[in-house]
This record gives sequence, C-alpha cells and structure tokens, in this order.
Amino acid sequence: MRILVTNDDGIFSKGIIQLAKSMSRIGQVVVAAPDEERSAIGHAITLHKPLRIEPVKLPDVDVEAYSINGTPADCVKIGVDVIMKRKVDLVISGINRGPNLGTDVIYSGTVSAAIEGCILNIPSVAISLVSYKSDDFSYAGEVAVEVAQKLLEHGLPEGVLLNVNVPAVPKGEIKGIKVVRLGIRRYAETYIKRLDPRGKPYYWLTGEAIDATQEDMQLDTDIAAVNQNYVAITPIHLDLTFYSLMDTVTGWFKGQ
Amino acid sequence: MRILVTNDDGIFSKGIIQLAKSMSRIGQVVVAAPDEERSAIGHAITLHKPLRIEPVKLPDVDVEAYSINGTPADCVKIGVDVIMKRKVDLVISGINRGPNLGTDVIYSGTVSAAIEGCILNIPSVAISLVSYKSDDFSYAGEVAVEVAQKLLEHGLPEGVLLNVNVPAVPKGEIKGIKVVRLGIRRYAETYIKRLDPRGKPYYWLTGEAIDATQEDMQLDTDIAAVNQNYVAITPIHLDLTFYSLMDTVTGWFKGQ
Repeated sequence: MRILVTNDDGIFSKGIIQLAKSMSRIGQVVVAAPDEERSAIGHAITLHKPLRIEPVKLPDVDVEAYSINGTPADCVKIGVDVIMKRKVDLVISGINRGPNLGTDVIYSGTVSAAIEGCILNIPSVAISLVSYKSDDFSYAGEVAVEVAQKLLEHGLPEGVLLNVNVPAVPKGEIKGIKVVRLGIRRYAETYIKRLDPRGKPYYWLTGEAIDATQEDMQLDTDIAAVNQNYVAITPIHLDLTFYSLMDTVTGWFKGQ
Repeated sequence: MRILVTNDDGIFSKGIIQLAKSMSRIGQVVVAAPDEERSAIGHAITLHKPLRIEPVKLPDVDVEAYSINGTPADCVKIGVDVIMKRKVDLVISGINRGPNLGTDVIYSGTVSAAIEGCILNIPSVAISLVSYKSDDFSYAGEVAVEVAQKLLEHGLPEGVLLNVNVPAVPKGEIKGIKVVRLGIRRYAETYIKRLDPRGKPYYWLTGEAIDATQEDMQLDTDIAAVNQNYVAITPIHLDLTFYSLMDTVTGWFKGQ
C-alpha cells in the first residue's frame, strides 16, 4: 500500500513526522509537504509560478520525503502526479496542530489537501489534534492508522473524504469515536488598525473562536464531540449544491 | 441598500467595473477588491501579514472603491468590517472572466468571496461569464441585477449563497435561466518539468478542462446548462457534511 502524507503546518512539524511514523506501520509512506506553514490557505493551487521538489531527510523516521514550495493542495497534486507517478492508495493530511472543526474546514489547508486527494479519486483523510499547545501526537497517530484501515476495508463513495479531530487529552480519557456533522464555529473577529513608521495605516486580522454555548454542546456536531472527549469523524463531500433549495429558486424566475 | 462588490480578477478588471455599474442601479455600491489577480486562490485568508486599503478611482463608474493587497475572502472580511462598518445588505463577486462551474467552485476565488459573505450572514452571489475571451460583460451585469433583486425579495436560508454562470453569447441567444446542481469538471492536468538556467528542475502545472461528453450534456448540471445557452444558477451551501454516509461510518467503529 502506497500512502501520500502531507499537511499545512510544514514538512518539519511534529504532527507530520508522527503521521509518517504511524502510517509506516501499514504501508509505504511518501511525504510531500509545504516547505513552510500554509495555514488558512483554503484550497489554493499555484498556477503562476513554478514548483520545486526538494528531497529532505526527516528526523526520527525513515521515509521518502520532499519539501515543496507550494500549498497543501499543490503538494497532493505534484505528489500524486510527479513523485508517486499516480500510484497512490491513500492520501492523509496532518496531524494538524489545532482543530479543523465546523465551518473552519472551508479555510483549512489540512482539509484542502485531503479534498485534492478526493478530487483525484484517491481515498483521503484529514486529521487534526484539537490543541495548539500539545506536542503529543502519538494517540492521534494511532487514530490515523485505525481510520485509514477502516476506510481501506470499507471504501468511500466517489467525492467523499473523512475529516478527523482528536481531543488533546490522555488516551485513557478518550470516550470513543463519534461520527458527527460539522458544527458552526463563530469567531469574534476584527481588524486592528495601526500606523506604519511612515504614518500610513495598515490592518491586521485578529480574533478567536467564541466558546461553544451550552446549547451548541447539546448538538450532534464535531465541535460538541471533541469537547466531550470523543474523536470526531465527519464524512465530507465535494458537492456544495444545496439541493433542497433548487425548486424554490426555480420558482423565483418562473413566468419571465 | 448597501452593496459590497468584489472579485478575484483584480480591481481594474472589466468584469468588476461592469458589475459596479450594474449594481449602482439598485443600491449604493462600495468596491473592495484585490490589487492584482488572485485566481485559484481557494478560500485563503491572510493571517501573517498586514493588509492595506488604498482608495482608487475606477474608470467609467462613480463609486467608492478600494484596492486591497489580499485575497477575495480578505476583501470581503475587511470590506464588511472596516470599510462598510458591518452595514452591508449584499455581497456580490465578479463578474469573473471565465466559468466557475462544477468542482471548480472549490478552487474559485470568485466563489470564495461570496462564501465569506455568507459566513458573515450577508446575502451573497458569485457571478461569472463563461468565456476567457469576451469583453462584453453587459448582459451578465443585467443578470446580476435580476438575481440580486430576486434574492433580496425572497431571501436565502442561513449558510446558502448563489453561484451564477452566464454564457458568453449575444443576449438574444440566451434560452433562459436554469437552477441546476454543480456538475463534475474533469481536467487533463499534469506538470511540465523543465530545467532552470542553473540546471535545477522545476515543475509547472498545465492542463485544461476536458470537454463535457454527450452523456454529461444529458444531466441537469450547471455545465450542461451553460453549454445549452442557459444562465445557470446553483444554490451552494457551507455545510460539507455528507449526511447519508454517517450511519455507515458509525458502523465501521461499532463493537470496539
């Protein structure tokens, strides 16, 4: 089994090294990941400049690894096409430092890499550790292996991938796995205005996720699940069509 | 009515100037758009550098306009928050030069701007002209006004926006409006490998959309609709959850 491992935190981040190690237990791993952090990059693809593929040696794990001067989606495209010559059985992206929950998956570089794998018709998984502080990715690595094995055993419909979030608590405190829908994450966001040394204004995005309310916690969402120390798995798909509104909108334009 | 107009082709592109003109007929327009082309940028948000807001004068249309050194999603965020002080009734993105159909909406900067508007709970529309060559955005401008009026009259559920593609044919050849699902666009993509002047390899993404087959043309998709000279409208939503697979995936992990 040939596994492409990527991420958006950059190729030397601890999460991807753990992921490469863990996935090596079940297949031949090739790492192709961004040369530096590419968070909140969404599903960007590099069209207007050339990409470079630099072989690198990762610490603590003996796998083929390449640093790419592109986005996570670029890494999957070039990893599948050029590096692995289209012989890829699984794309797995992570382990991200920090959650990719709810509406945030739209911004997520980690998830965008798995989406690109899915577009290329390869079974794909995104996996994140729900903490910006923890350095212990070992249990999340175990989850990655388990989810990958189940996925490869059962398969997924075309255009569907899995998004996995692992609470950053000791393994003994994990309550189990929940398959849940994406929740809604709210941010208290705003731009800070400052003056540069020449007196010209500039703006910098600031903001943090607003804690989920008690009400949010009653819902069957990924956000609630990780808050209750469950591993959250959400099947997500590429078809953004909102089918249930199609007849309504058709009605708007009737009789013209 | 206050309307935020943006795009991903850049603030001086013909499509946005037409859109600003057309939308001025039904409201007070503010343009906030990228200072240069930001195509295939997906839903990127600028976190790691400051943004600048430069007032500019657009040719042929008398509206407030600002050039932003960011992505389309940045333009909507900062446009809503800083420039328009959160008083925005409609976000409209375009008129894009070239289609945003099917799977491509995942990569689209044009659509990502409308998605950002939607995340901010503002009625939002993305509109594209299905041609990279045509300079005549006038009919697409009329469509933009019509769609915006219908949307504001009827409203949309939370988390839903409209993606509109207008065939680049004379108005008389347009057969009408069809509300359709997103199709699947296939690309013959690959990377060209070349050597730089120092003898080091680099890779550049190449590829073009594969023409839809006869079979594709029988389907009720946006791709088929524009090929048949219909204006295609697709309601799209932010919830990527693939609900119908949740029970199945739950079953994978039962009894552990």
